[in-house]
Formats: sequence, C-alpha cells, structure tokens
Amino acid sequence: MNILAIDSSAVTAGCAVLSDGRLLSSGFVNIGLTHSQTLLPLIDRTLASAGLKPGDVDCVAVSAGPGSFTGVRIGVAAAKGMAFKSNIPCAAVSTLEAIAYGAAGLEGICCAVMDARREQVYNGLFHLDYPDTVTRLTDDRALAIADLCSELEGTEGTIWLCGDGAELCMKHMSECSALAERVRLAPEPLRRQNGLGVARAAAKLAESGALTDSAELVPIYLRLPQAERELNSRQAGLKK
Amino acid sequence: MNILAIDSSAVTAGCAVLSDGRLLSSGFVNIGLTHSQTLLPLIDRTLASAGLKPGDVDCVAVSAGPGSFTGVRIGVAAAKGMAFKSNIPCAAVSTLEAIAYGAAGLEGICCAVMDARREQVYNGLFHLDYPDTVTRLTDDRALAIADLCSELEGTEGTIWLCGDGAELCMKHMSECSALAERVRLAPEPLRRQNGLGVARAAAKLAESGALTDSAELVPIYLRLPQAERELNSRQAGLKK
Repeated sequence: MNILAIDSSAVTAGCAVLSDGRLLSSGFVNIGLTHSQTLLPLIDRTLASAGLKPGDVDCVAVSAGPGSFTGVRIGVAAAKGMAFKSNIPCAAVSTLEAIAYGAAGLEGICCAVMDARREQVYNGLFHLDYPDTVTRLTDDRALAIADLCSELEGTEGTIWLCGDGAELCMKHMSECSALAERVRLAPEPLRRQNGLGVARAAAKLAESGALTDSAELVPIYLRLPQAERELNSRQAGLKK
Repeated sequence: MNILAIDSSAVTAGCAVLSDGRLLSSGFVNIGLTHSQTLLPLIDRTLASAGLKPGDVDCVAVSAGPGSFTGVRIGVAAAKGMAFKSNIPCAAVSTLEAIAYGAAGLEGICCAVMDARREQVYNGLFHLDYPDTVTRLTDDRALAIADLCSELEGTEGTIWLCGDGAELCMKHMSECSALAERVRLAPEPLRRQNGLGVARAAAKLAESGALTDSAELVPIYLRLPQAERELNSRQAGLKK
C-alpha cells in the first residue's frame, strides 16, 4: 500500500511516501511562507521523487490536528481533495501521535507538545520502546505547561520532548529540579512534525481498519478544552 | 550562508539546504533507481522547496566518501559542476562524519558504518554529547566487522549504529555478549545518510576554513586500506 502522508500542522510542512513500510521519499520545508504556497508543490515534488503519480496513491494521510487552525485546515483540505478525486481512503492522524511515531527508535517517554499559546500546550504522552514500539499513555489534550510538568514528575526514565512546543517546554522543565536531569530535546529530525511520522501512524490506522473516506475526514482542533480553560481563567480573573 | 548539501554515497539519495544553521528544506529518495536518474531532480526540487535558485547557493557540500564508487562519483561530479558554474566553494565531507552529524542529539558512541562488502565496513567512531556535540574518536577506515566488534568491547555507554551498514553490524553485535546490551540501531531518520548531516558537517568545515574549490574536490574512496587488506588475506590464504 502506497501511503501519501502530509503535515502542515505547524509552521513547517512535511510530506512522505511510505510503501508497505518502506520510505520511498520525503520532503520538508521551513521557509516561513504559508502552507497555501508551499504544501501542494511539496506534495508534487515528493510524489515525483517517489516515481509515483497521484493515481498510484492508495491512501492519503494527514495530521488532522491538533495544531495551527489554518495549517490543519490546509492539510485536511488538500487530503480531502486528493482522496475525493481518486476515490481512495484517508487516514486522519492525530498530530501528536504522528510526532510520537516520528520519534520511534528512542527509549523512554515521548512528550509530544505543540505550542497552544497562553502558556498552554497541546500534548499527548507516549511510551517508546526499542526498536519501534509506540504506546499511547494519555489522550490528546490542551493543558497548562505547569500541569504537564506536575504530571511528568510522577514518571520515570528519559523524557523526550518532540513537536513544535518542545523548546518552549524545555525552558520550563529545565528549571524544574525533578525533571531537569531527565528531559531532553529530541534530535532535530525526530523533533519536528514530519511526513514519516504521519505515514507510520496512518499505517497503524490502516492495520486496525480505522481509515475514513474523504467526506468523513475532518480537522481535530482540541479547541473546546482550550476555550473552556480560557473562559474559566477569565471568570476566575473577574472574581478577584 | 546557504549550504546546499547532497548525499549519494549509498543506495539512497538525500539533499538539504541549510541557511545559517537553519534547515530550510530537505528531500530524501529511496526508490532503487541510480543516482544518475534521481540526484539532479532531487537537488532541483529541494532548492525549489527552499525558495532558492542555484545562484543563491554559497557553498556546495557533498559526502565525498567513503561509499559506493559510482554513487560518490555522481555526487562529487554534481557538486563540482554546480560549484564551478557559480564559482563558489565546495565542502568535501567525510560520509562517515556526515552520518555522525546527522545523529547529533543522541548520547553515546556513534558507530558510523557503511557496507564495504566481504564482511568489511567503512567505519568511523564518534562521541555524541547532548545537545549536539560530535567528537571524532577514530579516523575513517575500512576494517573487518570482527575487528570493529573487538574495538567496541573496550568502550562504555550506548553504541548507536548509523549508516547503511547498521543492520549488517547489528546482526554481528547482537550475538556478541559484551555488546548486545549496549548496541542500538539509531532511529531510522538518523540512521540513513541524509542531506542534513552533510550540511552540518560542511558548516563545521566552513567555520574552520576548510572549504575547497571545485577543482580540488575529489572523492575519498578509502580504497587503499581495503585493497591492502584483501591482498593480505589472499596472500595469507595462499600460504595455508
């Protein structure tokens, strides 16, 4: 099965073609232009590098959120369009799960984090076991960095920070004596969202029969929890 | 400085554009075609993804060997051509050093290995210190896998196998009780030769004023040591 995987959930864009578990091609862009300018050419180039045409793709996978609202919308729209045209299934991959699959091969806890602004992060925790096992430990959620730190204090082993919120979390965690010794920024190629992680997570969805069709593919914004938290915090502020 | 980095030292091809330490774009191909078919289109696509034209490149970096004879020749020839046309410097990067720089962010020994056939590998050992320090421990050399195993038995800490000879070495080292517990295949995106590793190694060469011009750029085959070893082994065989 040829999986075309795309990621535009943050400021970078990634694309990969995975064929029966083998990476045929990948591409990555980080030049500050919007995904509306960079994503489709990147898909085009990555497919060409794989020696494939759009009709050769059996499944379109996309990091469907959480992430940048506009970025996720562009990625999901591109995936829907390609899947609809070719009448092939889609894989709506959790961006955080894709980040964890991208870091497979490390050992310890993968703390997948994306900057959700206002001292909050979108986060999922996963356990990584050598050589390539990824086990989900929490649901995807939006939470305060301070709460994430408290939760991680109850864990053991190396904590690998991955995702575009990794550096932000590193600042906080390196000042926390219970975490500073155990926390590491993942090596850069594993840290950033990328196509390979999306493709691997999609392959797992395909194995478990969890693919969708283009009509069912929708963004996963995780927005309600964050909106509720902000409302609560504003209300709490008003009471002071 | 915009560094265009290319790798075609093994069966895969990689390309990256690094601008003052920031990865603007990268591409990777592994489809079984020869580099004469895949490399130039990959360079073209990776530059386009970075939003650059050939004239915007300040330095062309290439993994100049060791590696596949034909692959290294194709990569070096492409780099020479581009550098000559634009009259810009080249970086002749050791493929093994590029592999180690690609794995920066891990901790322990990076055992960069490429399959040199006949139970031999091209190898260099490096120490990786978090967050991104790479320290060379040995020269690049061709040696028997058994000799590499013996040498590694005298080391401590995690041994990360990187490069296209990683799986081959893993087979031997996982059967060696003194190494089995400590040896790990590096995560796949760090394991394969790729453009980012070449670009990072080239940036170090540029810092130390070790760039060359296109005329001076030549492949580094490490062939003499291997040829001598094979001659020695044949002569030893004749004496039996």
